[in-house]
Amino acid sequence: MDKVNLAEKFALFDERWSPKIVGGIDDYDIKLAKLEGEFVWHKHDREDELFLVVDGHLSIELRDRTVELDAGELFVVPKGVEHRPRADVECRVLLLERAGVLNTGDAAESALTRHSLDRI
Amino acid sequence: MDKVNLAEKFALFDERWSPKIVGGIDDYDIKLAKLEGEFVWHKHDREDELFLVVDGHLSIELRDRTVELDAGELFVVPKGVEHRPRADVECRVLLLERAGVLNTGDAAESALTRHSLDRI
Repeated sequence: MDKVNLAEKFALFDERWSPKIVGGIDDYDIKLAKLEGEFVWHKHDREDELFLVVDGHLSIELRDRTVELDAGELFVVPKGVEHRPRADVECRVLLLERAGVLNTGDAAESALTRHSLDRI
Repeated sequence: MDKVNLAEKFALFDERWSPKIVGGIDDYDIKLAKLEGEFVWHKHDREDELFLVVDGHLSIELRDRTVELDAGELFVVPKGVEHRPRADVECRVLLLERAGVLNTGDAAESALTRHSLDRI
């Protein structure tokens, strides 16, 4: 594996809500995503999910509160907890979660669902 | 779990080569460390190790090359690969690796060995 320069990788894509795999650690994917607008409510029953904001601002709505993240802040959504990410303007995030986890979790299939992710 | 602001956490300690646990994802620890000087050659036989440079410059010596990382760059040292981190001036990193992995891996016990890590 080579090193990963986050800015160089972010320059390779513009698609929103479509994480790109940039590396891995053990059985986990390291992913980058550009988020803008509102995702769907969902949960992952067996996996935690790490969000690290690289640039911009991300709101992660939970059922009982909203976590507000600026660049240089991270949050781990615990397994089984319903959440909905939202970004009013484009936000760039590093995601880490076990390989193979469906991005929309238990939500109904939609245009946001990604069954396979590109590697960049 | 609350969100983690990396800058606020880094302000809480000054010790070098002594990772602090700031959170977790599944069975993995999310750690922050300040590195300065030269670590010891070591490897982790069963675990990959993620280094993400938050501030400064980090050199990760491998036996056949050296990986040079600036802020916003990450590298995963594969399991079983000998490495030696080095930072000529203080470098701040986010580390991710399976919980319970000894920081010095297979190297002989030394002043750098940390059998338990603080949570901050």
